[in-house]
Order: sequence, then structure tokens, then C-alpha cells
Amino acid sequence: MSLIASTGFAEAGNALARPNSGDGTPSARLNSGDGFASARRMADAIRFLALDAIAKAEDGHPGAPLGGAELATALFTRHFKCNPADPAWFDRDRFVLSNGHGSMLIYAVLHLAGYAGMPMEEIRRFRELGAHTHGHPERDVALGIEVTTGPLGQGIANAVGMAVAEAFLSATYGPELVDHRTYAVVGDGCLMEGIAHEVISLAGHLKLGKLTFLWDDNRMTDDGGTHFAISEDVRARFRIAGWQVIDADGHDVEAVSAALILAHQDPRPTMIACTTVLGKGLPRLEGKRGAHGGRVFPEDVVEARAAAGWTHGPFEVPQDVAAAWQAGTGERNRPSYEAWQARVAALPADKRAEFERLVRGELPAGVLSALSAHAEALAAAAPAQSSNQSTADIVDLLAGLVPELLPGAPDLEGPTNCKRGLDAFTAENPAGRYIHYGIREHAMGSMMNGMVAHGGVLPLGATYLVFSDYMRPSLRMSALMELPVITLYSHDSIGIGKNGPTHQPVEFLASLRAMPNMAVFRPADAVETAECWQLALARRDGPSSIICSRQALPAQRSDAGENRSARGAYVLRAAEGGPRRVTLIATGSEVDVAVKARDLLQAEGIPTAVVSMPCWEIFGEQDEAYVWEVLGPGTVRVAVEAAVKLGWERWIGADGAFVGMNSFGASGPADELFRHFGITPAAVGDAARARL
Amino acid sequence: MSLIASTGFAEAGNALARPNSGDGTPSARLNSGDGFASARRMADAIRFLALDAIAKAEDGHPGAPLGGAELATALFTRHFKCNPADPAWFDRDRFVLSNGHGSMLIYAVLHLAGYAGMPMEEIRRFRELGAHTHGHPERDVALGIEVTTGPLGQGIANAVGMAVAEAFLSATYGPELVDHRTYAVVGDGCLMEGIAHEVISLAGHLKLGKLTFLWDDNRMTDDGGTHFAISEDVRARFRIAGWQVIDADGHDVEAVSAALILAHQDPRPTMIACTTVLGKGLPRLEGKRGAHGGRVFPEDVVEARAAAGWTHGPFEVPQDVAAAWQAGTGERNRPSYEAWQARVAALPADKRAEFERLVRGELPAGVLSALSAHAEALAAAAPAQSSNQSTADIVDLLAGLVPELLPGAPDLEGPTNCKRGLDAFTAENPAGRYIHYGIREHAMGSMMNGMVAHGGVLPLGATYLVFSDYMRPSLRMSALMELPVITLYSHDSIGIGKNGPTHQPVEFLASLRAMPNMAVFRPADAVETAECWQLALARRDGPSSIICSRQALPAQRSDAGENRSARGAYVLRAAEGGPRRVTLIATGSEVDVAVKARDLLQAEGIPTAVVSMPCWEIFGEQDEAYVWEVLGPGTVRVAVEAAVKLGWERWIGADGAFVGMNSFGASGPADELFRHFGITPAAVGDAARARL
Repeated sequence: MSLIASTGFAEAGNALARPNSGDGTPSARLNSGDGFASARRMADAIRFLALDAIAKAEDGHPGAPLGGAELATALFTRHFKCNPADPAWFDRDRFVLSNGHGSMLIYAVLHLAGYAGMPMEEIRRFRELGAHTHGHPERDVALGIEVTTGPLGQGIANAVGMAVAEAFLSATYGPELVDHRTYAVVGDGCLMEGIAHEVISLAGHLKLGKLTFLWDDNRMTDDGGTHFAISEDVRARFRIAGWQVIDADGHDVEAVSAALILAHQDPRPTMIACTTVLGKGLPRLEGKRGAHGGRVFPEDVVEARAAAGWTHGPFEVPQDVAAAWQAGTGERNRPSYEAWQARVAALPADKRAEFERLVRGELPAGVLSALSAHAEALAAAAPAQSSNQSTADIVDLLAGLVPELLPGAPDLEGPTNCKRGLDAFTAENPAGRYIHYGIREHAMGSMMNGMVAHGGVLPLGATYLVFSDYMRPSLRMSALMELPVITLYSHDSIGIGKNGPTHQPVEFLASLRAMPNMAVFRPADAVETAECWQLALARRDGPSSIICSRQALPAQRSDAGENRSARGAYVLRAAEGGPRRVTLIATGSEVDVAVKARDLLQAEGIPTAVVSMPCWEIFGEQDEAYVWEVLGPGTVRVAVEAAVKLGWERWIGADGAFVGMNSFGASGPADELFRHFGITPAAVGDAARARL
Repeated sequence: MSLIASTGFAEAGNALARPNSGDGTPSARLNSGDGFASARRMADAIRFLALDAIAKAEDGHPGAPLGGAELATALFTRHFKCNPADPAWFDRDRFVLSNGHGSMLIYAVLHLAGYAGMPMEEIRRFRELGAHTHGHPERDVALGIEVTTGPLGQGIANAVGMAVAEAFLSATYGPELVDHRTYAVVGDGCLMEGIAHEVISLAGHLKLGKLTFLWDDNRMTDDGGTHFAISEDVRARFRIAGWQVIDADGHDVEAVSAALILAHQDPRPTMIACTTVLGKGLPRLEGKRGAHGGRVFPEDVVEARAAAGWTHGPFEVPQDVAAAWQAGTGERNRPSYEAWQARVAALPADKRAEFERLVRGELPAGVLSALSAHAEALAAAAPAQSSNQSTADIVDLLAGLVPELLPGAPDLEGPTNCKRGLDAFTAENPAGRYIHYGIREHAMGSMMNGMVAHGGVLPLGATYLVFSDYMRPSLRMSALMELPVITLYSHDSIGIGKNGPTHQPVEFLASLRAMPNMAVFRPADAVETAECWQLALARRDGPSSIICSRQALPAQRSDAGENRSARGAYVLRAAEGGPRRVTLIATGSEVDVAVKARDLLQAEGIPTAVVSMPCWEIFGEQDEAYVWEVLGPGTVRVAVEAAVKLGWERWIGADGAFVGMNSFGASGPADELFRHFGITPAAVGDAARARL
């Protein structure tokens, strides 16, 4: 076991007991040749699986899996809690490979640990179309992959979200049911990204003691040495944010293992700075810039085998290594797995049912029907209120029905109003349910991905629509991972008024609609808001954006028996006095503009229908007959939305008109802005008449 | 003068000389009543202009302008280099109000300093439609506003970009022409945003010694006390990144002024932690959460006046205060302004012309024609290469012609290949021209905004298209500020292959096209790439995104006499053998798919044209006759783009077909992916035939 003398193994004041790993792993038998694989051979098994796969694929990133082979061996074979035979075990530790380009590291680990979804055939098919060994890891819990990673910084934030979920569930349901750790392997790139600082700061503030980062400190990035772009003291950066920081030789399994034990003993989150060599064991590229993602040729692999004394063939795991990996993973964890199963089985029936509901990610019975009842009450009361307020009321309702609901906002608790009656989630009160993210939208987005990926909790993020751009890389990952993450976006248009164009979304509806698998809801009144929430909560395979106004919206609906938003769009007001000649299509606050324009046109004897279209994505999935029944073939179609036109041609056709924005907004009172930009009933009427 | 004893005025080892401000300001006459306004009265003038304006508007954020009144007085009346009579003076200091919601702070300062664009009438019209006193400051150099701010974190990064521009220009053209400082007032929110860490780290690394942040350390955010979300040591965070950190009582003009002098004496960037009280001077809300953006009522302003002993009427600046402000700003700076003008006038004619060209932001003569010649050479050579490579060749060409060209990338120097032959911009060599941003896309985006807003430099950012999401809040600000920022985005589709869906853009063309004032170019081959660069370089009032492939693209054009991309779209291949029956429309790498599909259709006797559409935005501005000439009315239209359909209905109409993506991509070889997702000549042919 070697320690790094220059930096010290542990931080000052943290006396280093020479730890015994205490888990029966034969750590003393290093290179012992007694038939049980040494730690070095266990790590080399990762190394050569990675090299063989990358060489065969003629593509991939060798640097990270080779540099991380020992730290992964230390973590997975001595500490990580999992059951390869039950990858979805709820109380498993969570692992995130934040530097996802090193995907062969996790694939090799999963194979060696015996995950059924990662047979050698998958390793051989690395980066082939249809294989599970994608270029970057893609979430598949059945395989043992918790989150999709690759865009740097996302994985770190996912891990912080997972640790929040664990802390809340452990505090709420007890450590006998939930008591596990979250680990992330992070690279220099992950740490340079701004989102990293957001979550490092917040994780330290929240004292997420079961969170451990293993920093692959190899001092190299794609451009070359890290000296090109950074000179800050990364270790100090963690310390001042409230983390424990430990140095370890990242190529010494014993040292990393000892550091992990210290991590487990400290109430703070821990960052283990693992000093490594990029591409360790690949003689031609080792420690060089080219090791990051450079091509590995067959002769490189031959040379690496010779250097390591690795006499086994390509894609061959020697029996002693396989046995040691299985002993260190599934076998080591069997007692704790069985004990947990027994504890769950011993729960009183009602508690067990409740816990199993959480694990399955299902809503409590009655939530959707409570929303129906809420909608009916709103239909009768017909409140004129902002859809932000309508949503806040729903969050308040849900908070009483869904104990795992965790609302939160990036320092917009007041304007989004989703905290009512909830305690804050804090270091001192991890059973608190409202998360103050601070002014860190990106952290919120990616932490919610981690929370939903973890399971057992239902986070709800709330912010202004313009700030969704700050979260956009996280939103993309929600959609790509098919995670049902719900975000409330208020302040959705020029209707916010005087704060001006920096805070007035105009392009955001289009940019969110552009994202595959993102459901974008923009309700027109309180009833539609309840309907959209029902749809978002029922959605299990992708994120939902619920887009709300700051300004009050008049009630449009006095009916609520049927969720009319469930088909994406519907005829809100039918044409009267003859066959429909004009169809006005609108969303959100502009539905009222359309309704008033219809009044003008009907008064002139022009039979006009108004279509409310709260969700394009759902409407686009309806059968053609329904779509045309709504859109009114042969009628003049005019769309009204206080946003850019992009995409509206789909619904209004080549001859239709659009009344909306074609520029950024301006600073001024909301009503003046709607007139200034020509989004008025009169303008809609004019557009329709011009086409009759 | 009071110093904050608990933290110490200066950091350890930085001995504090009790400084004389040395600029003739009557700092000794505090509250002297001798007819020349005291510093306190000078600050109160800001305070009451802000309060009067906010109360009149019945909207706005009082907390920041009231809390920042003294620090702004210290900065502007004693140190800031400017000429209110010539707001665009190139060697002025740059000021950024990063916490833009405190807009009344800068409006009041500009009014008091005598900027002609900020008469009292503008202050009275705060937040009215059509006034220059917008809810958040909007870039208008003639008014004295350098950048639009509001979305937190952007301003900080703009300031770092400005300091980079200054350092480069000063090193390259000499301090006799360029030698000024950049100041930013930053709030807690600015510092919590991830982008802040990116630029704090980079600014420290680059030793931008003329950069000073004044942190409005009021320990409050919208949610309440900062303790809800942060406990890190913010001062230490700057120190470990290489900054000088100084504490000062933010309500003591002398203390802030002294700290500024220390800032000027240190080679590091400086953060002055100004301890302030949010809403200082507003008794009902002072130091409370509600001071951030709470409503200010007339009785609040009465109470504030009484508390301060401010006996002047609303919107009234007493003569002594006005005189002191003018003495401290324009008059104080007159000698340095005149000396600078004299130095410029004394330059040799050629140097002067070159410098004036830089100041005007014009390209050197011959650049656009050099690109034409380059396009002609490419038309003759017909290289099959990626458009990323075509762009990198152009950047190399431009680097030789445009001395102020500053390419850079967030750790993708190798793949984007824009450094060839250029030295890095570093602390030791600020005349270097290639900027290693580190893995900090957001920093790059917003720093480029700051550089272009500064003027005199032409930054070019290069990254992968998927990472544009990390920069999206900056891109929005480029577009909103009408800044001609050019970014190269490579790796633009599933054509990147095995790295998989995390790195394969599908929604980005649509989301960029959704943004007002963003020009999105996606060239089809090397000649079009040169044409698009010509257009982007000529564009002066908004940003350009040049979207490029990783994979090689065959040459499509053998002509280059005319910039055919200049109309946004054009008929690349005319129909043959009869009147056109089919129009295939494509961009970028899919133009070749369309050309091959045309071959299939023509072989079947179906006259088919191919339209290349490198820029929707420009094509959308053409006259209707040209648009229809290109689109072919009455023909079957099929669009081909390896991206989502959103918006294509505009060009293909209700009956047209689209061949592209309707989901995220997958990990596999590029050619297999194009087949897997059905983006092939055969599929295009089928889509056309099905509509004939």
C-alpha cells in the first residue's frame, strides 16, 4: 500500500488508522500466486477487457477505463453494495460514471461482477448498433447502469440528486429500509463544468455524508495538460464547500479502499482525489494527451499485454480473476441483501405495501381522482388566476397526498409558491420536503434526474420559463433517459411585463417542443391546469414541462367531467350559426385572446370555433379523424401564441395565419406589450377576415 | 472610514497602506456642509432616484440599488475611467451590473454622471414601454450600458470576456492605446450560478489583473437568508482560484475606494467583498427578504427620506450633489481622455488607420474577397472533407488576415482544429490568440459576448453542436444584444456515429432556429462553407451558428463565382427532362442524400430538383417570387435533414414529406445509423414517389 507523500493521504487532523478492509477480501494476497487473483490482476482484467473492446471497435476512449481500473476494483470488490442477480435491488449503492466516455470501465465491471445483462458477447460488441455497450453508458437499471452519462457535469449532479433521495427516504422510512451510498467517478472535465460547482456547493451545504466522489486526477484533458486551462486548487475547492478530501494513489487498490473507509466514517460528503495516469498500462499513449480518445491498434494491445505480463487471450477472463470478482461483489453482499429482504418481508402489511409502492414508483391510490375532483371544483368556481397559481395550488394538494413529493425551486420559492406548509430539506432535517436549490437551475434539473433515476421520490422543480435554458442539458438527459421528471415553468411570455426581454420567453415553447420525448403542456385556465397535471403525473416514460402564466387567466371551462386535454387539443368553443368557417387555435394565455376574437367574428356572422391545444405532442399522436375534426378542414385557420411561429405551420397549414411574436419582447406593462406586439382579439379577427 | 474588523480589510500579507484616493475628490469633506456634497449625499442621490423611480413604476427591485449606492459612488466618482460626453470612448473602463435586476443603480449613476442619453425624463419613465430605463439594463453603448444583464451569471462572464479583450489588445497594440479596467457588481445569485465558477477559475488562471468584482455581499436572496442554500466560504473560493480578495464595508465610500486602489496595485484579479445591507435606507424592508423585489409604496419613500434627512423632492438632484458627481466623473477623467485622443492623433497614419478599423469593428480590407478566392479554389479542387475541416481551414486562412481573430474551444482544440499556428492566450503571453477555455462551454459563450461587446476583437468559438445547450443562455444574450458572435458547431448529427445519442444532435437545428435574431448556417460542402463564413462575417447585428459535420461530405459545387448561399437557399440541381415534378430540399450532409435520391428519380424519368438551404433565416427574408422559384409550386416537396421535423412544414407545406429523425439517435457506425433511421436516397425517393 503506497500513500502519496506529497499531498498526504488524509487531510490535516484526520488521523489515518491503517484500515483493514474488514470484508474478507484477500487484500494481503497481492500477487500471491496462490490461485486467488491479486488486486492487480483484478484491475488488469478491467484494463484488458477495455483494451480488447476498444481495439475491436476501432473506436472509444481508453484513457479513463485504464486509468480507473484500480479505483473501480477497490470500490466494487470491497465496498460497493449490490446484487448482480438483482440489479434493481432498491437499497443497492448507486454508481455514476460521470466521465461517461470511459464507458468500458463500467461495462467491464458489470461483466466481471456477473451482471446477466453484460455477458462477454456484449463486451465484444462494444459500440455496435443494437448492443448494450453503447459509446456512452445509457441508463438501464436491469443492466446495472443507473444513468446515461457523457455530457460532462451531468453525472456528478445526478449523483447528488441520488444522495438527496437516499437521505430523504432513509430519514423518512428508516435506515432499515433505505441505507445506501452514492459513488461517482468524476474527471477533470466534470469538475470544470459550472454545474459541478453548483452541486459541490449544495452537497456540502446539505452534508450529504453518504456521497463519495472518486476524482480521476490524471492532470490531462483533450487539449493536453490541465495547465492549459486551470490552476485552481481543486482539493481546496471541495474543502471550503464542506467536503472531506482525501488523497490516494489511484493505482493502489489498497489506498483507494482505505480512503473509502474514511469516507464512510465522516458525516461530510467525501472527495477522494485518486492520482492516476491516463491510459495506464498502454505504453504508447500512457500519460499522454492521445490516451483520452486516441485509436488503439492491435499492436498497442500486444504491447500492453507484454508490459503487464497478461498472458490471457482477447476477451478472456482467467478463472481466478472471475472468482475473485464474484467473491468481492455478489458473494460479499449476499448477507446484507438477504437481511434487507427479510426486513422488508417482516414489515407490517400496510407499511410494506406503502414501501413497495414507492419502490415501484407508483402514485398513491386516489391521486388522479383527487385531481379530477379538484378540476370539477375549479370548473364550478371559475377562478381568474394565473396558471402558476393554479399549479401551486395543485402542488399543495399533491403534497398532502403524495408523501414522497419533493418540490423545490432555484431561489424562486415566493414567486412559484410551491412550499406552503412544507419543511425545508436540510442537513438537520433530511425528512424535510422542500428543496432550496439556491440560484442553481442547472443543478436542479440534473439533480431531479438523479432523484427520479434513484426512485422512491417525486421531485417537482419550479422556475421561470426563461431559466429552462440554464437547465437545458439536463432536460435533454431527462428526455433521453425517459425519466418522468416534471418541471413547472412560470412567467411564460411577454405577459410578465416590465421585467423585460431578458425574462420574457418567446422561443422556449418551440425549443422545448423540438426535444424528442418532452411533453410540453401550456394550460389555458385552472381546469386545464389540473388536467395537464393529471397527464404529466400519469406519464411514466419521459419528462413533462408545465408552462404557466404569471398573469391571471380567466376561466374558460365550466366542465370538468372528462379530461379534455387528454387528446392534446380539443374544440373549446364550437362555431355557431352555420358550418364552421374559421378555426382559431391557441394555447395558454392566448386562448382567451382567441375566445374574444371569436366573439368579434361571431358577432359579424362568421361561424368560428376556438381550439385549445395544451399539448402538441399528445395531439400529434391522435388518429387522423380526430385531428381533422379539431382542426376543421377547409376552414380558415389562425393560430395565436405569444411566442415564435416555428412549427405552427404543422397545424395551420400553408395558408393559415399566425398571430404571435417574431422578435424578443420589451420592457413595459403586460397589456401594453400585447397591444404593441399585435397579439389582440382584433388582430386575430383581422387575420381571419383577410383569409375568408 | 470603517473597516470590517472581523474579516480584516485586506488578506493576510497584503499590508494596508491607508490610501489617498489621489484624484482630487473631496473625500475629507464627509458631511462637511461646506457646499460641496459629501460622499453620503452623493450615494443618497442614487438611493432616492432609485426609490422615486421604483415607486412611480410601482415595480422594480429596490434592494440592489439601495445596497449598492455607496460602492457605486466610490467606483464611479473616484476611479472609473469614462467620458460621459463620449460614452463609446474605446479606452473607457467597462462596467457590468451583473445583478441586472438592480438596474436603477446604473441608470441613476449614468444620470448623475451626465450621460446625455439618461436625462431625468428617462428616470421618471423607468420600466415604461419605449423608455431606455428598461426593467433590466439593455446594451446601448451610446447610453453607457455595455451589456444586457438580468439572467444571473451572464454579466460576470461578460466582464471576464471584456478583460480578456483588453488584455489582448493592450499586449498587442500597446498600453498607450488600450489600458483600461473592467468592473462588475455581482450579487449572491451571480456567484451561485455555475457559469460564475467557470469564469472565476479561468480569470484567476489567466491572471486578468485589470478585472475587479465588487460583490454586493448582503446575505439575502429571494428565498430569504443565503443560509437556505449556501454555506461555502465564498472569499476562499476566489482565493484558491488565484484572486486577490479584499473585504470592505460596502456602505463606506472611503473603504470601498481604498479597496479599489489595492485592486489596481495587484497583478491578480480582485474580488472586493462589500458587506452591505439589502435595501439600505428603506426602513420597512431594509435587510429583509422583501427588499429584493418587493413593492415600494409612496409612504416607504417618505419614511426613507425622513430617515436619511433627504429634504429634496422626488426626482430632484440638489446642485451640490450634481456638481460633485460631474466633478468626480467627466471632469476627473478629462485629462486622461484628452491625452489618449492626442496619442491616437499622433500615431503614424497606417497605425492609426488600423487602430481605428479595430475600434469600428470592421474587417481588414480583402477578407471577404479572400474567402471568395478560397471558394473558387475549393470549387476547382472539389475536396471531400468534413465541413468541420472546411471551417477549420477557413479559420486558418482568416487567422492570417485578421490580427484580432481569437479562436478558441472548450477543450476541443484537436477535434475542431482551429489553433493551427496560433499561440495560446495565457497570463504570460496575452498577445496569444488561441483561447483554451477549458471544459467550460457556458463560459466561452458568455465571454465571447463580453469580447464582442468590448470591441476590437473577433472571437470564434468552436465546440460540438450538442454542447450548444450548455451555452444556450449566452446564445440568447448574443441574439438579444444583437452581437455578431460567431460559433462553429461541429459533430452535427447522427453522422458522428459510435459516440451515441448523448453526442448526436437531433433537436438543435430547430432549437437554434427558434431563437430570434440567430442565423443558423448548415453548409453542404466546402464551397458552401466558405460562402456561409462570408455571410456570417458580414453580419453585424446578430450571432451566427455555423453547423458542421464530423464526417466527410462530397463536393456538390463546381461553381463559386457567386455566393449562392447569400439568398439562404437555391436550386443546386435543376430538374431535367421536363417540367420539375419533385423538389428535394436539404441542408448540410443531407444535401448529398438528396442529390443521390434525385439520381434515382431522374433515372425513372421523374424531373427532380435539389434545393440546398444552408440558412432558413436568410431564405425567409427573400421576396416571394424567389422563394417560390426555389420551392417549386405544384411540385412534390420532400425535405431531408438528419434532425427533427419541427418547422419544416414552412417549406414543404401540408402535403410535403420529411425524411429525418423523430427520436434521439443511437450508438453505432454512422452509415448504419443513417440506414437504421431511414435517411437514405431510397427513402427519399420512396417519399417522393408516394406523393406523385
